[in-house]
Amino acid sequence: MNPDAVNEALVVFTPSGKRGRFPVGTRLLEAARKLGVDIDSVCGGRALCGRCQVTVGEGSFAKHGIDSTAAHLNGFTATEERYRARKGLQDGRRLSCQSLLEGDVVIDVPPESQVHKQVVRKRAEVREIAIDPITTLHFVEVQEPDMHDPRGDLERLQEALRTQWQMEGLSADLHVLQGLQKALRKGAWKVTVAVHDSRRIVAVWPGFTDKIYGLAVDIGSTTIAAHLCDLASGEVVASSGLMNPQIRFGEDLMSRVSYVMMNPGGEVEMTAAVREALASLAREVAKEAGVETDLILEAVFVGNPVMHHLLLGIDPTELGGAPFALALDSALDLRAADLGLQDAMNRGGGIYVLPCIAGHVGADAAGVVLSETPYLRDEVSLVVDVGTNAEIVLGNKDRLLACSSPTGPAFEGAQISGGQRAAPGAIERVRIDKETLEPRFKVIGCDLWSDDPGFAEATRKTSVTGICGSGIIEVLAEMFLAGIISKDGVIDGAMAARTSRIEPDGRTFSYLLRDGEPRIRITQTDVRAIQLAKAALYAGSKLLMDHFGVDHVDRVMLAGAFGSHIDTTYAMVLGLIPDCDLARVQAAGNAAGTGARIALLNKQARREIESVVKRIQKIETAIEPNFQQHFVEAMAFPHKTADYVHLTKAVALPAPKVLAAEEGEGRRRRRRG
Amino acid sequence: MNPDAVNEALVVFTPSGKRGRFPVGTRLLEAARKLGVDIDSVCGGRALCGRCQVTVGEGSFAKHGIDSTAAHLNGFTATEERYRARKGLQDGRRLSCQSLLEGDVVIDVPPESQVHKQVVRKRAEVREIAIDPITTLHFVEVQEPDMHDPRGDLERLQEALRTQWQMEGLSADLHVLQGLQKALRKGAWKVTVAVHDSRRIVAVWPGFTDKIYGLAVDIGSTTIAAHLCDLASGEVVASSGLMNPQIRFGEDLMSRVSYVMMNPGGEVEMTAAVREALASLAREVAKEAGVETDLILEAVFVGNPVMHHLLLGIDPTELGGAPFALALDSALDLRAADLGLQDAMNRGGGIYVLPCIAGHVGADAAGVVLSETPYLRDEVSLVVDVGTNAEIVLGNKDRLLACSSPTGPAFEGAQISGGQRAAPGAIERVRIDKETLEPRFKVIGCDLWSDDPGFAEATRKTSVTGICGSGIIEVLAEMFLAGIISKDGVIDGAMAARTSRIEPDGRTFSYLLRDGEPRIRITQTDVRAIQLAKAALYAGSKLLMDHFGVDHVDRVMLAGAFGSHIDTTYAMVLGLIPDCDLARVQAAGNAAGTGARIALLNKQARREIESVVKRIQKIETAIEPNFQQHFVEAMAFPHKTADYVHLTKAVALPAPKVLAAEEGEGRRRRRRG
Repeated sequence: MNPDAVNEALVVFTPSGKRGRFPVGTRLLEAARKLGVDIDSVCGGRALCGRCQVTVGEGSFAKHGIDSTAAHLNGFTATEERYRARKGLQDGRRLSCQSLLEGDVVIDVPPESQVHKQVVRKRAEVREIAIDPITTLHFVEVQEPDMHDPRGDLERLQEALRTQWQMEGLSADLHVLQGLQKALRKGAWKVTVAVHDSRRIVAVWPGFTDKIYGLAVDIGSTTIAAHLCDLASGEVVASSGLMNPQIRFGEDLMSRVSYVMMNPGGEVEMTAAVREALASLAREVAKEAGVETDLILEAVFVGNPVMHHLLLGIDPTELGGAPFALALDSALDLRAADLGLQDAMNRGGGIYVLPCIAGHVGADAAGVVLSETPYLRDEVSLVVDVGTNAEIVLGNKDRLLACSSPTGPAFEGAQISGGQRAAPGAIERVRIDKETLEPRFKVIGCDLWSDDPGFAEATRKTSVTGICGSGIIEVLAEMFLAGIISKDGVIDGAMAARTSRIEPDGRTFSYLLRDGEPRIRITQTDVRAIQLAKAALYAGSKLLMDHFGVDHVDRVMLAGAFGSHIDTTYAMVLGLIPDCDLARVQAAGNAAGTGARIALLNKQARREIESVVKRIQKIETAIEPNFQQHFVEAMAFPHKTADYVHLTKAVALPAPKVLAAEEGEGRRRRRRG
Repeated sequence: MNPDAVNEALVVFTPSGKRGRFPVGTRLLEAARKLGVDIDSVCGGRALCGRCQVTVGEGSFAKHGIDSTAAHLNGFTATEERYRARKGLQDGRRLSCQSLLEGDVVIDVPPESQVHKQVVRKRAEVREIAIDPITTLHFVEVQEPDMHDPRGDLERLQEALRTQWQMEGLSADLHVLQGLQKALRKGAWKVTVAVHDSRRIVAVWPGFTDKIYGLAVDIGSTTIAAHLCDLASGEVVASSGLMNPQIRFGEDLMSRVSYVMMNPGGEVEMTAAVREALASLAREVAKEAGVETDLILEAVFVGNPVMHHLLLGIDPTELGGAPFALALDSALDLRAADLGLQDAMNRGGGIYVLPCIAGHVGADAAGVVLSETPYLRDEVSLVVDVGTNAEIVLGNKDRLLACSSPTGPAFEGAQISGGQRAAPGAIERVRIDKETLEPRFKVIGCDLWSDDPGFAEATRKTSVTGICGSGIIEVLAEMFLAGIISKDGVIDGAMAARTSRIEPDGRTFSYLLRDGEPRIRITQTDVRAIQLAKAALYAGSKLLMDHFGVDHVDRVMLAGAFGSHIDTTYAMVLGLIPDCDLARVQAAGNAAGTGARIALLNKQARREIESVVKRIQKIETAIEPNFQQHFVEAMAFPHKTADYVHLTKAVALPAPKVLAAEEGEGRRRRRRG
């Protein structure tokens, strides 16, 4: 018999299975820490935060070698009763900081009490996000100064963090020092401290605080989308987007670079414009969520290389011509003031900018890679983010390749006769009757098809104004499937015999998609523009496949607004992407933004993407002879009539699901591509 | 026989004596690096900087086992010839980066070619300053970007630093990234990089640069003194001082603290005032030295706790009352922008603020300790820096104690009837004829004594306006030695029988030092004010001696402007300081400023003073019962008439030497106390 047995008790924590013997009277939270059991706490065991809740395990005590008749824990305490009255506590739950071991016991740590709890993502095929933010909160009680102890307030705070949280060698930002004495006295020597990366004290609040937030932002050339996340739960508490105000300096990336070339110093204006937009976006989401901007402690940014440079105040001129040299490709750790955001978030807030992959493959692509994790998979994934340039990543856990391909803006509705950006009034879905060659369509902002009763009525408010990227893909694919366009992309004038919608247009023909004001036609030039864009996209993918040494891919992820809104079947009909089992072609939503959110919520993810990006082999399409050949070969529509039935099975669906909604765990506005 | 002997040669470096064999043809600089011989270089071996000069050792080859008939080095090269034509090169000197080993040789590394060369200080008793600044310069050639290498410019710069300087893992400040691409292209891929603490790239200049500077600043309540130093040679290239503009918020420290108490937020104005003064001082010294402010890469600040807090933008209110809690006592590493100095020095400039010792013993006292190094000595040193508070440090290498003592402003000429600050026109030296009781004196700004022919003429421009601190000490000591004042500090009315200069003044008497406009008298109240001040100073020293367990000290260092200008003999006559061998009482000049300069020039010194300050035991006079007793006992003048001859031997000297001139290796303005 162990002589200590009467004074010790066995505790087993589930689900980790970690176990150990401790003296009777040991606090459960302390036992958990000693065993390395993952239990959260902000208040450090003072029954304030309620993060350390546990339940006494039911049944199967015998399995763990525990005598179920023994006394287990002390009774529910008055402190816990006060906590329950103040904040609520489910029946059966105990605060582990108040629970004392009195006998052998099995303790279950529910998921929400774990530090590294996970955010559930809606798509089954992607990894969940473990919550492990780089900024952490720590409530401390600081020793008051007295005449016998001449140490500074900072040094007594540091000692409290050392003794109460085992945090050593923390420095403090100057603005923290400026506010420290008042915070300590206002909080009666009890304060909550935000610590960045276990190294810097970045904020101090009087008393107990347990909510801090972070901002994940995707800076697109056209739109900027921000999600405000609770850094403890990972929940998106507010989302918002706005137009990138740099648009007034140039519609697309190259015109913005040109603006700087023509107006030396012009980058200063564009940098100021985007930073002001970010500040107002931060204030907007904070307001929407009812959160003080002072509680925003982290921000993570992704964007293409030009957006990345302009955010940082770096002249993007070098990105405008060969050899397309980035100022830097590494990730960056900055502080709020570095980007002029000190009034839109906590002054001590940390900023993280994901690494760029290459001169045309930016931090947005890195975000997509982090979200879609091709580097963790055995199978070969093709990850495509379509914008003015398509950023393409191919590979698996052994090897990754990346390139960008100059698709031009056709997929975004630009350079298309009736084209427009995805916005209310834009045609986004099209079906063409294979017999009558009559079209029907849907517009953004109206749930009815154009041949549904009430459509004319419904679109009196939201008038039909043009056709957006996904609409163009659909109409071209439908025209091809209906035989209106040949494999080579020629609109067949002979079809004029079957429908008056085929109209002569100089020496070529066009298809009238919509009669009315405006008349929306698909011209031969439009078809050519899409052919060029899709050939570039396909050729880029094919080039990477050549380098990788595969002639097919196991899965395709389409990221970005465009990739999320096009129907993947149509994309394959037109040959935007290489052939792949349709079930394995997925829209990844705003994967760049999701990547930003992952880096926001998990500090290890930052190191992970930095290391992955270093491993990615970059292919420059401009100097690859095969690219031109693939490009020419990819101009045609790829599939034979025999593929028709196979490929269009899925097309019968009324509308593809919109996976951008993955972001929508919280209140959000919808973005459309 | 060593078979390799024919292909190897022995090289011996003096004065280090390091030696080794290397293949014939090895560059001397490379051999030196491999042997760990301390040879400087900024250009990394490209014959640009000339820092690596050596001479071939003369004679005594045999002593080193070298056959003096052997060929030694390659001939003087065309590259060296070009360097000589451009920058000059003494006869016999070689550039070690261009010299190839061709036979056994003794190589002498002159002091100026050593990285850790020392700045010679004029005082024999103090340690010399080894040059080892925290910011270093590195010339590199960076690989140009090309289409096959998608790395960013930063990453190629980092690689150059890794391969050419063995510097790993350097980060870069955002402003460096903003200017990097232009600098690289302007310098045709050759740039000079400033690296802070072997960790951060803080500046990049196109081409070759080898001069950077640092600013050492002592922020006094009354004056701010700055020295601009060449960070390579340690030389002071310009000095300047100005009045602390905070004086408009309050003459002394406590009135500035009161200003904040009465005007909440008032610290913001005072912080802005001192930072603006620092910026203009930086520009002024840079202009004086003909240096761009962009080349100022470091600044070090010392100051008392209130000045320290106000510099940092910290409300000093807590320092105004018990328990006198500092916001922080640790040293601080900041960047130029943190203190609003980004336009007065390089944007990437580093700022170091020395640690404070206690609530009344500031970073200035830490600077004095670093300069006077009592912690390195076996003997017990008393280090005193007199201002409104006297900051006192006592101890040796085993133990250090510190306190502050409330001397009040009498030593600075305040609260004295004819008193004024040390400035032209102030009486600073006084002698009283022991027979006639007639005084003679000298004023600041005139080299003549008042009884010299031509004095009246000379002082027509610089009129006599009052008496400063050192003048008060002298006149009181002379009055005491002449028997005009008793041991208890009473002006003896009976002396009126011997001289009309003793005048009744209510119920007491005064001594007329100067008749004329203005009449300058020494009143009984003046004597009492000095007695209170000197009793406080003495009591503080005595209290530390009690704690240390000694009844005498081995040496006394008097720091600060006042300490440098008083005659140490008179200080001992009056009992300002404990008895000590007069030869071992030294004026240390602006030791606080010298401490700042040491921390500026030597990064190890920063770690040293941080560690020393942590070891100092702080004594709070306010809660020490013995302090009051010592204070009361110290009111009297200590010495018996028998001491007269002994103590006044040195007084015959016309004027004590002014050790503040230690700073004067370069152009400077003189400060007076």
